Amino acid sequence: MRFVRYGEPGQERPGMLDAEGRLRDLSGVVPDLAGAVLGKLPNIDPNGLPLVDGSPRLGPPVGQIGKFICIGLNYSDHAAELGATPPDHPVVFMKATSAICGPNDTILMPRGSQKTDWEVELAIVIGKPAKYVSEADAMDHVAGFCIANDVSERSFQMELSGQWTKGKSADTFGPIGPWLVTPDEMGDLDDLDLSLEVNGERMQTGSSRYMIFPIPLIVSHLSHVMSLHPGDVIATGTPPGVGMGMTPPRFLSEGDEVVAKISGLGEQRLTVGRDG
Amino acid sequence: MRFVRYGEPGQERPGMLDAEGRLRDLSGVVPDLAGAVLGKLPNIDPNGLPLVDGSPRLGPPVGQIGKFICIGLNYSDHAAELGATPPDHPVVFMKATSAICGPNDTILMPRGSQKTDWEVELAIVIGKPAKYVSEADAMDHVAGFCIANDVSERSFQMELSGQWTKGKSADTFGPIGPWLVTPDEMGDLDDLDLSLEVNGERMQTGSSRYMIFPIPLIVSHLSHVMSLHPGDVIATGTPPGVGMGMTPPRFLSEGDEVVAKISGLGEQRLTVGRDG
Repeated sequence: MRFVRYGEPGQERPGMLDAEGRLRDLSGVVPDLAGAVLGKLPNIDPNGLPLVDGSPRLGPPVGQIGKFICIGLNYSDHAAELGATPPDHPVVFMKATSAICGPNDTILMPRGSQKTDWEVELAIVIGKPAKYVSEADAMDHVAGFCIANDVSERSFQMELSGQWTKGKSADTFGPIGPWLVTPDEMGDLDDLDLSLEVNGERMQTGSSRYMIFPIPLIVSHLSHVMSLHPGDVIATGTPPGVGMGMTPPRFLSEGDEVVAKISGLGEQRLTVGRDG
Repeated sequence: MRFVRYGEPGQERPGMLDAEGRLRDLSGVVPDLAGAVLGKLPNIDPNGLPLVDGSPRLGPPVGQIGKFICIGLNYSDHAAELGATPPDHPVVFMKATSAICGPNDTILMPRGSQKTDWEVELAIVIGKPAKYVSEADAMDHVAGFCIANDVSERSFQMELSGQWTKGKSADTFGPIGPWLVTPDEMGDLDDLDLSLEVNGERMQTGSSRYMIFPIPLIVSHLSHVMSLHPGDVIATGTPPGVGMGMTPPRFLSEGDEVVAKISGLGEQRLTVGRDG
């Protein structure tokens, strides 16, 4: 099943896509795709739901996100492009939840930004509380998956005394969606294609088979250092092709269009603007 | 004014302390000390509020905390004790909001913990949205202050491939309170005494005069790399005397009592237990 949230920012309603990709109104069934609802997503035929007129904005497919956790350096080929040694354990940092926006919104480069960069990532959405869970049980706590773009201002991240969270947290730096897709529709989690284009030029090409730490290990590991709750989102790291890894480095400019795709999870189509 | 939230975890009600330190029920005036209420805290005489019977548990004095931001290495004498160079800009990381607990609750050392440490800190509570604010205007966005203990598991923080957030985010690692105190009652923010004792032995002794980055700079700086919202909490760094800085290092054990105090902000009295 493919769940969405649609409407103006902060006013999103829950929806589903039917087999033809048409938007259906789920608000008669659940109040939102948030909290405990994520632990028991409605298992229904979307054809029985009302069709939604027009083409409303899509918001993040999860509401009330409590924590926005990121895994760093999780693709062996991305670590290589940065000249970094693959880590022994998942590298963990957080993005501000205030950075979250919809999948087709405008990325606003913050004041003073010269190095705004892209990072397409597979994101996990937690469905049920997780604490000290094993890898074998980890998937029982996952509601589904979505695309995340871990937009990053590299000078804020690298040149302002640290830590990384500082370059990851500007408003609009966390587009997620378009869809929350349940695990049963994802196919092999170790064989997903990821890509990102800027103005039609392919920048990132990756596969989840190069993830150093797979999904169940990430959920299990995190659950031993903090508790996870329904609506927590975990971005699992980016494949090669980020701007700062290029020679010379390349970064986003006003007016750019950023398109990110992951197998089974649809696509994000973001434009780039400047904030204030 | 001194605001509190009292009651069982997740069920806290808003209250105030009167001049004699008696607990008064504020729930007839505001629904909670959270969100927009923090931007316009009721300016009333607590003697007109109903007295609360008994001695209920105190919870965190702020509800619905959206971000729990921490400043690292912000005391010149603490940086020296760790042999660290004072940073050029505030060092920023995040604690999980799921780590937050009340000021007299039990610190639960997570499974596998051998190095749970203490860090008394002055915490800022944001009252009004802040984005690109100047140092001169920063205090207009502050609702008040409270004590925070940035409880830290040093092996999770330092020996699991990073970043720091990993050792800062276990459940109960964020006791805040007891009181939210408005800025007009704080006196000189550059002359606050901080202390922390373990089982009656003084471990930390500090003064806010040794802060490298003062409160207005921290709020202004953060507001340029992320937006701040009512209910965001910023712990501003710890003075010398943490366990990992000692020779040999000292850490918490089950049954320890940790008492933290800051001028004008009351005290936290926490016991230490083991989780699961």
